[in-house]
Formats: sequence, C-alpha cells, structure tokens
Amino acid sequence: MTRQIILGMHLGNGYGALPGAWRAPGVDPTNYVSFDAKVRHGQAAERGKFHFLFLPDGPSLVADIENEPPHFNLDVMLTLAAVARETDRIGLIATGSTTFNAPYNLARQFKALDLMSHGRAGWNAVTSSGEDVAANYGARLPSSAERYGRAHETIQVVQALWGSWGREAWVHDQATGAFANADEIAPINLRGQFVGSRGPLYIPPSEQGQPVIVHAGGSPNGHELAGRFANAVIGAAFSIEDARAQRTAFRDAAERAGRDPDEIKYFPGLMTTIASDRRTALDRRIALTQRTFPQRAAYLMQILGLRTEAIRLDEPLSAAQLAAARPSPQDPRSAHALKIAREGWSLTDVLAHGVIDYHPVIVGPAIEAADHMQAWFEAGAADGFWISPDIYDDGIDAFVDGVVPILQERGLFHQDYAGSTLRDHLGAPAQYGVDPRAMR
Amino acid sequence: MTRQIILGMHLGNGYGALPGAWRAPGVDPTNYVSFDAKVRHGQAAERGKFHFLFLPDGPSLVADIENEPPHFNLDVMLTLAAVARETDRIGLIATGSTTFNAPYNLARQFKALDLMSHGRAGWNAVTSSGEDVAANYGARLPSSAERYGRAHETIQVVQALWGSWGREAWVHDQATGAFANADEIAPINLRGQFVGSRGPLYIPPSEQGQPVIVHAGGSPNGHELAGRFANAVIGAAFSIEDARAQRTAFRDAAERAGRDPDEIKYFPGLMTTIASDRRTALDRRIALTQRTFPQRAAYLMQILGLRTEAIRLDEPLSAAQLAAARPSPQDPRSAHALKIAREGWSLTDVLAHGVIDYHPVIVGPAIEAADHMQAWFEAGAADGFWISPDIYDDGIDAFVDGVVPILQERGLFHQDYAGSTLRDHLGAPAQYGVDPRAMR
Ligand SMILES: Cc1cc2nc3c(=O)[nH]c(=O)nc-3n(C[C@H](O)[C@H](O)[C@H](O)COP(=O)(O)O)c2cc1C
Ligand SMILES: Cc1cc2nc3c(=O)[nH]c(=O)nc-3n(C[C@H](O)[C@H](O)[C@H](O)COP(=O)(O)O)c2cc1C
Repeated sequence: MTRQIILGMHLGNGYGALPGAWRAPGVDPTNYVSFDAKVRHGQAAERGKFHFLFLPDGPSLVADIENEPPHFNLDVMLTLAAVARETDRIGLIATGSTTFNAPYNLARQFKALDLMSHGRAGWNAVTSSGEDVAANYGARLPSSAERYGRAHETIQVVQALWGSWGREAWVHDQATGAFANADEIAPINLRGQFVGSRGPLYIPPSEQGQPVIVHAGGSPNGHELAGRFANAVIGAAFSIEDARAQRTAFRDAAERAGRDPDEIKYFPGLMTTIASDRRTALDRRIALTQRTFPQRAAYLMQILGLRTEAIRLDEPLSAAQLAAARPSPQDPRSAHALKIAREGWSLTDVLAHGVIDYHPVIVGPAIEAADHMQAWFEAGAADGFWISPDIYDDGIDAFVDGVVPILQERGLFHQDYAGSTLRDHLGAPAQYGVDPRAMR
Repeated sequence: MTRQIILGMHLGNGYGALPGAWRAPGVDPTNYVSFDAKVRHGQAAERGKFHFLFLPDGPSLVADIENEPPHFNLDVMLTLAAVARETDRIGLIATGSTTFNAPYNLARQFKALDLMSHGRAGWNAVTSSGEDVAANYGARLPSSAERYGRAHETIQVVQALWGSWGREAWVHDQATGAFANADEIAPINLRGQFVGSRGPLYIPPSEQGQPVIVHAGGSPNGHELAGRFANAVIGAAFSIEDARAQRTAFRDAAERAGRDPDEIKYFPGLMTTIASDRRTALDRRIALTQRTFPQRAAYLMQILGLRTEAIRLDEPLSAAQLAAARPSPQDPRSAHALKIAREGWSLTDVLAHGVIDYHPVIVGPAIEAADHMQAWFEAGAADGFWISPDIYDDGIDAFVDGVVPILQERGLFHQDYAGSTLRDHLGAPAQYGVDPRAMR
C-alpha cells in the first residue's frame, strides 16, 4: 500500500482558530458551552474521513477574556464522550497533563473513553508548561527535568494499568458464570521517583486494546518522551525544512528507543481559510482578526527590522521599506512574511495572509491547501497534518468539500476509513498487555 | 406546597445491585462496558420522574472478579456525559474523591458536566476510605482527620472556582464584541494546609449557577462536612429509628454550620425486587444470589448467635434454633432477620429476603415498596430514597410502572418535574458566585 496523508481536525473552543470567530455572522455565540456544536463539528470532520480529532488543553484562563474566548474546550474528556456517542469512526485524541494528574485517574478515564468509542481514543500526554497552570494547582511549575521525569513514569504507569487486563481476561460467560479470568488480571506494583500505583485497573481491553499515546511539542525532552512512547506527534513548523528536521528528530528518538521510526507519525499544523479566490479569503480573515492588526503590524515591522512609527495599515510597504527589510532569524516566519509583503499587498492584507500566525496558513482556494500538503508530504516533512479552520461552523465543511476531494483524486488521501480504531487509522498495531519496550 | 418524596436511582456497573444480575436471562453480559445500557437505564429512571441518578465510585478493583463484576461504572463522568446528552430533566450525581483529585480538576469537570446537562450536575464529595484505593495512587490512606481536613479545603476551593465567574460575567455580545466582563471574573487565591488554587476557572455559570454538593457516609466527620456544604446526603439505614437518627444528625450539623436544616436532604437506600407476589420475587432473588448463600447463611447464623454446623439451606430454622436465637447488637440487621426467620421461611428464603443486604430490601409487590417509603417519610426518617433495583434492565421499569404510580396516587411523589435543574429538583436555590457561609 502506498503511504497516504493522515489528517486530524483541531477542535478547540467551539468557534474556530481565529479570535473573531465567535462574532462571525451565522456563528452562535454560545458555541463555547454547546456540546451540540462540538458534536456537529466532529461529525463534519468524520464526513471528510478525517483520521482523528485533536483537542488541546491547558487548565487555565489565558485569553484576553473581554474580547476573545478561551482557547480550549470546557472539558476535553466530556466533549469527546459526547462526540464518541454521536460518531462512528473518527479517532478521538485529548490532551492530558502528566504533571497535574494522577496516573490512575488518567488511566481510568482514557481507557473508559476507549471502551466508549470502541477503540478510538488517544492520549496527548504533555507536561504542561505555564506558571499560570501550576498556580491553579496551588504549585510552582517543576523544572523541565522533573516534569519529564514524572512524564516518563506517568506514561509507564498508565500503560501498565491499561495492560493489567490481558487480551482474554474478560470472559463474561453467562453459562459458566465466569466473569473474568483472574490469571490474566495482575497488579502492576510500579513505584517510581515521582508516581506509583498498585493496580490493576478494573477495565477490560477495548477494540484496539488500549489508547494510543500522542505527544505535542518539540523540545529535546519532548523528542525523548515521544520517541519512547508516542505513535503520533502534534507539531508546529513553518517550513518544509523545519518540519523535516522535526520529523527526523522524532524518528531518530524512536530509533534510539529501539523502535521502528515508522511507528511515530509526525503531524505539523495547517490553518485554513478556504474560499473561491484569494481576495474573498483575505476579506474573510480580515473580518475575523482585524481588531488585532495594529498590534500585530508593530510586531511584523519588528521582525522585518523596520521602524514601527506611522504604520499605514491600508498601504503596502514602500520601496524603501522593502529594501531596508531584514527578516529576523529569531522568528521563523519572517522570511515568508517579507516574501508576501514584496508581492505588493497592503499591510492589512499581508497580515490577513496569516504571516505571523501559529502555523502556515492557507488563504485561498482549496487547491492551495492540497498543493501545500502534497509538497510537504512528498518532501518527507510530514506524515499528515492537523487542520485548524478559521471558523469551525463552515470552515470544516469548506475543507471537506474542497480540499479532501482533491487529495483523494491525487491518491494522497483514503476514500474511506479502512479500519475502525484509531490504531487502525494510524497504522499502529493493537496493544494488549504491557509493551515490554515501554517498561525499560 | 406539601413535602414530597425525592427519588434517586442508583446506577452502578450496568447490571444491577445483585451479584448475579450480569448472568440473568435477557441481560446482555457486556452491559459493564456499554454506554448504550447506561443511557437506557438513565432514560428509564427519567420516565419515572426520578429526581436524580446516583453513581457511586471507588477507584479500585475490589470484586470477586472471577464470579462477579466490579461494582462501579467504567468512569462516572463519561457515563454521565453520555446520559446528559440523551436525557432532559433527571439530575446527575457522580462521586468524586476529595483525597485523590486536585480541586481544579474536580471543579472543571463537574462544572463542564453542569453546562453540558443544562444545570443538572451534582458532586458526591467523599474522602475515599480504603487502602486499596490509596495504593492505586501510590499512597497510604491518610488519617481520617487529614482526609476530612483536605475535604473541607477541597470543597471550598472547588466552590470558589465555580463561583469565580459572576452571574452576568459571560456577555458574549456579538454586536459589541464583548466576550466577557472581566470585572465579574476573579482569581480565588485560596491556599490551605492541604490544597490551593489561584483560579479563576474558565467556565461561566450554568442554568443552576453551579453543581450541587452531595455527601455519602455517616461518620461524625461526615456529618460535619455535609452539614457545612451538602444539599443532599446518600445514606444507609436499616430501620426508621436509625434513619431518623442519621437524618437528625445531618440536620443538626447543618444548623451548627449556620444553615437552615431543610437545606440538607437525607436519602437512605432501598433495594428492590418488585414482582406480582412474594414467592415470585423470592425466586428471582434466589436465582441472582444463590451462589453466595452458603457463605451468607453462616454469617446469618452467627449474627443470630447460632452454631454454624450442618446448615440446611432448604429448611426453616428449627423451633429449638428460633428459641435459642439472640440477635447480635453488632449488626443492625439481625433483629429483622430473626423476625423473617420466625415467619417459617426456609433459610434460602430468609436470605432471599435480603436480610443481610446493604440496605432494606423490598421483595414482593410494588405496594410494599410504597408502604415502606411512606412510613419512613412520614416518620421523619427520610426526605426521599435512593433505589437499587436488583437488575437495571427490567428492575427500573418494574419500579417506575409499579411503585411510582402508587406514590403519585397517594400524593407523595410529583406527577412531573416542576423545574429543570437539579437544584430545582432538590429545592435548593441557584448558586452564583461564592456562598460566603462556605468560606468561613
Ligand atoms: C503543536 C503543539 C501543540 C501543543 N499542545 C499543547 C497542549 O494542548 N497542552 C499543553 O499543555 N501543551 C501543549 N504544547 C506544549 C508542549 O507540550 C510543550 O510544553 C512545549 O512545546 C514546551 O516544551 P517543553 O515543555 O518540553 O520545554 C503544544 C506544543 C506544540 C508545539
Ligand atoms: C450509602 C453510602 C454510600 C457511599 N458511597 C461511597 C462512594 O461512592 N465512594 C466512596 O469512596 N465512599 C462511599 N461511601 C463511604 C463514605 O464516604 C465514608 O468513607 C464511609 O462512610 C466511612 O466513613 P469515614 O471515611 O468518614 O470514616 C459511602 C457510604 C455510604 C454510607
């Protein structure tokens, strides 16, 4: 079978990736608390045969709350519980902190989601990296070494708990009265420097055995953690070179951990505003983000090495400015930003291209998104992508109806789900019991 | 308005309260992992206008797993998420440990459930009391004083986080672009001896403001905790006198905490096997529990002060045994057990009456359950009951179709839900912001 692109859909706060999405015409401003909305968005992605939903999380209120919604779901597990009940095939990946959760609590809830979804659950194991998060737990943020030390132990304990029921442990034979085979259910008795658990868990295997481990990040400690445990990495990269280097770093880390590098899939992000033409798409993004442009223009000038006085948002940079511009090596987006500025767009339009957004941004026809993904995929920079539409309500549909068919025609994307579990979708084997490699 | 009985439905492992429920004819042995089953059971209770579902929890595997299922849900929060989506009115109470959860995690997940269910969530705050549970968290069980000290702080922090968004904080006005009113969102900055949090939470009020606090238990420390914080208590009592004493203890504790004692509702448990006549009901219970009878018979003899040799399960106690019997004051069930034995039933039938079950047991026609509840309710021994049917699949329906109409005819039970939130159902006022009484 030829290798194909794997796609994940970002599900955040119910509105979309752009700060003004909650105010857009046709968007219900109560989507933040609406599980109907989240289910609808999950179903829209499933209609497009997306392999998984990705729900980031950070237990803190960090938004400019007077003007913008929080970034995340009310609760990622409850959202996925609702989506699990009302979808059939799409994978369900939620973020859970290894620093601020007990392993037993992570193990039981993700495994319950896995049973509930018939084998579609994944755990994005992150260490949490903000003092604001730590403060909500009445703590200071531990050092990176400590956080990653605890993360390694936590994932080991969680996986051991998941594996504490063997594949055939759950007999439930009404005729003989055998509910379970106790020989296949064992305590784990793990005790590390940071966490421990006796076990066993009380939950039998799911259709995929146990949930998939995912990691999001890109620090050297993150490479190490993902290399050892993860089947998928949620990444962020602004160029093919950057993405390829990241993907290679994760693959190398997997090899160092004694694994086949193909076991770890790397997914950089992509933000999308899909419209019939560039102008329409730019205008849509302007409406959704304009409020932030004065501040962003100043930042843009700065990373181009230009003075920030007298910014004229409605005009292109002058020939003198373009000549003087020096893209900052501190910001990987600056070279691309200058390239767009040189095309002669007004400063507003340059910003509307998303040149200083969190990920590469497609602002235009569906084919541009398809071309972008094909180029990155074929250059070995990605195994797939996680997509952040500008507005979920119609942005998912625009992608599904516009981009997906192009990828399918090119043979780059599956026509339908081949399997039923998240492990099937990622090409990861089912996991029963404890993977001995993970216990070293 | 006259006082009426409040009813809760116990939702445990998907099968029912009796150990053999999973093997009963017509029961799907996979109900343990089936969220369809839990939803069906929740809907059945809602059809009967039950005020709430009660999901106990204890993060441990304690069952005789070769023969019997675990007692609890795979995950109480995910179960209630599914039920919330597929019911409209019934209250949703899940158990969450104050000892083995961070307050911020409890706060976010219960409040998210509250939004998801449009104001129907309740948190049964318990301290957890088994070394088996503690071991799953890599810990020893803290002393009672420590557990309850942490419980008081945890509930305070959770309630403060729930109240960290004022009633009108969430503006979400698309026209003006005001997402929230930051003046009504405040950090909580609580730091106790055991737990702390900075806050604020990132979740606006629900239709009932915030979830209801429930407690289950009956130790003096539990009275104190419930008296201060709880609107409802899940109890266990074997006689009217016992229940009345417990109810009074909780009401007194509420008064000591400066509250109106009517703010705290006391619900003893009731197990039911409803059938057209006693014999049919006994046979049903025999089929579901017989396996345990040899062991239980020995215990029964013991609490009656009788020798345990040569137990004849199929015969009544002899005249000599009945004459020699001395109910043990150590077990509150022994007097009632002797009364049933004196009626001349075989030892098997005596046990099938549930004389040594966890709660009083109704084994017979619906009217007996109605009479029991009326007597307790009118004697001031209960504000309502939580019901544990033998088998959920048909036992909930038997209660709803048999017992509920009798209670309604007698004017003891509502004809329909009067309000839409759990606070409405319990007669508790909506709670916005922080209740200053709770912060003392
Ligand atoms: C694409 C991407 C997504 C991330 N998602 C989350 C998230 O949902 N929650 C979270 O706490 N951290 C998230 N992170 C942060 C990382 O887990 C990690 O903390 C960060 O990269 C800093 O690295 P370090 O903590 O290893 O030093 C994400 C990082 C990236 C690059
Ligand atoms: C009816 C009833 C239900 C209970 N439900 C739970 C439960 O679901 N989870 C739990 O951990 N403890 C539960 N408990 C135990 C109590 O929370 C408490 O730990 C127990 O009564 C022992 O008291 P103490 O811990 O205050 O000494 C329950 C107790 C009673 C009486």
